[in-house]
Amino acid sequence: MNIAFVGIGLIGGSLALSLRRVGFAAHLTGVESNPQHAHQALQLGLVDTIQPLPTAVSGADMVILAVPVHIARQLLPTIFDNLLPSAVVVDMGSTKDGICTQFRNHPKRSQFVASHPMAGTEYSGPQAAVDHLFEDKKAIVCEPQYSANEAIEWVVSMYHNIGTQVLFYESAAAHDKHVAYVSHLSHISSFMLGKTVLEVEKDEQHILELASTGFASTVRLAKSSPDTWTPIFLQNAALLSSALQTYIENLQQFKKYIDAADTQKLHQMMSEANQIGKIIDP
Amino acid sequence: MNIAFVGIGLIGGSLALSLRRVGFAAHLTGVESNPQHAHQALQLGLVDTIQPLPTAVSGADMVILAVPVHIARQLLPTIFDNLLPSAVVVDMGSTKDGICTQFRNHPKRSQFVASHPMAGTEYSGPQAAVDHLFEDKKAIVCEPQYSANEAIEWVVSMYHNIGTQVLFYESAAAHDKHVAYVSHLSHISSFMLGKTVLEVEKDEQHILELASTGFASTVRLAKSSPDTWTPIFLQNAALLSSALQTYIENLQQFKKYIDAADTQKLHQMMSEANQIGKIIDP
Repeated sequence: MNIAFVGIGLIGGSLALSLRRVGFAAHLTGVESNPQHAHQALQLGLVDTIQPLPTAVSGADMVILAVPVHIARQLLPTIFDNLLPSAVVVDMGSTKDGICTQFRNHPKRSQFVASHPMAGTEYSGPQAAVDHLFEDKKAIVCEPQYSANEAIEWVVSMYHNIGTQVLFYESAAAHDKHVAYVSHLSHISSFMLGKTVLEVEKDEQHILELASTGFASTVRLAKSSPDTWTPIFLQNAALLSSALQTYIENLQQFKKYIDAADTQKLHQMMSEANQIGKIIDP
Repeated sequence: MNIAFVGIGLIGGSLALSLRRVGFAAHLTGVESNPQHAHQALQLGLVDTIQPLPTAVSGADMVILAVPVHIARQLLPTIFDNLLPSAVVVDMGSTKDGICTQFRNHPKRSQFVASHPMAGTEYSGPQAAVDHLFEDKKAIVCEPQYSANEAIEWVVSMYHNIGTQVLFYESAAAHDKHVAYVSHLSHISSFMLGKTVLEVEKDEQHILELASTGFASTVRLAKSSPDTWTPIFLQNAALLSSALQTYIENLQQFKKYIDAADTQKLHQMMSEANQIGKIIDP
């Protein structure tokens, strides 16, 4: 199968490595606006050739859209214009309501599958691409009712080939609400933790000396790419703002109990938080 | 060497396993107020016997104080009263100013070493004990100027035997300020993230489906023991309250930029946070 990868960074590049390994992709074409990234993607063997978007799409059986979420919405009309009647385009973005709403009535909507693989690392660009990134992970497909059955089948087959379980959300808005809390909020809590510590600890030596594995784990996502995450946060602004507000209120409550030395209430808030362990680490 | 472990949970138990393995401890006595934990510690072979505090201390060359930080301050007078003239007592608590200030003028202060190993996991109790927990980690010794040289040498030797680097902070208050930001704040950010997500996501299924490795990493510390962390937060209340305030203000600023769709400012705040990667992951 000829596959065009629009964007060959962490997500597109990792997918290219896995799809080539399992034999799902025979010929891999890359589309990449950053010349340095294009060069790296070829050197690393992520794709076989680099082509302009219309050329790459017009020769592809499947188009993987793995660029920042606001760029995906800008490129999708050109992709539809050049898409073969038998081809499928699948996007990999972390927010889904914007793209699903914008193209809901597009004549070629049935050839489009809106997906969100729940996998990633804090690194970015072609050099961050790693094989097996999607293995034993989940991918959400949003609003499958607007995609052709055949398109869904191809995308499910792609994910299954690389060990990824596919789940369906009929509402992209519901997906965005849940990821605001379960994914996006944790990125912001980590980004702001990193920023706060850096602001106060002018002497980096103390951070180095006192950083335990606990701090490293909590602050890991603060290394994530602002290029990737700025558009995600803005596409999900309303829901995320509400999630942040709830988070801030919980922190303010906790601070109030510390200031009041309220042992019992502090203990209770942490005991409630402990319950997350039963879900993510049963 | 006969070693008494006052508290045989995650920290005391892990240290017991490592000190026995390297041959630093010949006979290990446990002191444990929780009968179930005492039973588990014996069953798991963490210690050889369980004894009351005065008996255990009076037969020990070294006393390891690894109980919640407020309990450590309550037990230290009894430990001093029963301590052999040649013996050393070392505490392992996460806050140091309270204990150092309280006992600064105690007649036996020179036999006491105030330490803080920068290691742990989100689990607690004897069953959480793991060998090699302290390997390739750092331990801080606070106010070494009040300890006898020989006492410091024994504690440094103990840590070196299990692969832990020792650093000295002349001011326990300075230690507490730095750990407020680098360690304690990350626990609170994680606890409140877990609590926020649980409050909003009444249906656990969505958390299960959408939790990626990034969320799991950020929320990991939310599984930590409230029994351990309530007293730590309260012993470090003033400094921690200020750290929390700075963190909350950064989150409020970030939310303001999301609400205003200020791409540039969001990008800038995240780029600043990115710098943490150069320190903890160079």
